[in-house]
Amino acid sequence: MIEIERKFLLTSEAFKQVAENSTHIIQGYLNADPNRTVRVRITDKKGFLTIKGKSNETGISRFEWEKEIDFSEAKELIKLCEKEVIEKIRYEITSGTHIIEVDEFFGNNEGLLLAEIELNDENESFLKPDWIGKEVTGDPRYYNSFISKNPYTLW
Amino acid sequence: MIEIERKFLLTSEAFKQVAENSTHIIQGYLNADPNRTVRVRITDKKGFLTIKGKSNETGISRFEWEKEIDFSEAKELIKLCEKEVIEKIRYEITSGTHIIEVDEFFGNNEGLLLAEIELNDENESFLKPDWIGKEVTGDPRYYNSFISKNPYTLW
Repeated sequence: MIEIERKFLLTSEAFKQVAENSTHIIQGYLNADPNRTVRVRITDKKGFLTIKGKSNETGISRFEWEKEIDFSEAKELIKLCEKEVIEKIRYEITSGTHIIEVDEFFGNNEGLLLAEIELNDENESFLKPDWIGKEVTGDPRYYNSFISKNPYTLW
Repeated sequence: MIEIERKFLLTSEAFKQVAENSTHIIQGYLNADPNRTVRVRITDKKGFLTIKGKSNETGISRFEWEKEIDFSEAKELIKLCEKEVIEKIRYEITSGTHIIEVDEFFGNNEGLLLAEIELNDENESFLKPDWIGKEVTGDPRYYNSFISKNPYTLW
């Protein structure tokens, strides 16, 4: 399928007061090349393998293939990943008819907050809370695959 | 799981007279790095995603994770792979209590024949037909991931 997604920096942590739930995520890359990223993700109880293609010219749309995989197998596959594995908490906030996902990063990426919103088409509008800041859609520095090799605290 | 496998060149094409079945295979790599290869394989009707770790010091054993995936999805994922996709026919030949798989390569790898035998442990013996030649287990040139980037006809 095609993932259509816009990405933003945050102006504050006010999102935490309205977050409906949060998930602890650990993820690593079997390939961090933006032309063919291969990601292993572990949440509290589940494992996922995700393959993404290159973004289109707007940076908004990208081929994505994802499968849930066995939790213990995912933990084995994480060990094969390139350095560094990313650790973050993902918060979900309903905004109008959309869900905004905010990632709070830890470890080498402490201090980084990123909001993502998935859309049905590139031009779809959405309700933007006031804690949403500068748009960084398509900026390769804010790809998790880039961050895994270039930790935020070293920028 | 751990894949335990030895690999050989061939002395002739006599294996074709004893092959019990053959499968047409197309495969590409989402990562050809031998430390973490990610392979997409399409056979006549099926798709597979396979992740392999680094070989051990003997070159015989290697972590392997494989899942059958949707055929049409596999065809999409092949398009994301690095150059070049490998095309081969795999023959299966029973030899004693083992199955020997012989790959006959096409396209840029025309002329290459490789036999593989999967074992239950590294020291297990097996019946070696007279068309089995030099052992190349652990030789990185005979990894399909290496061949995909360095076609045999250009060696």
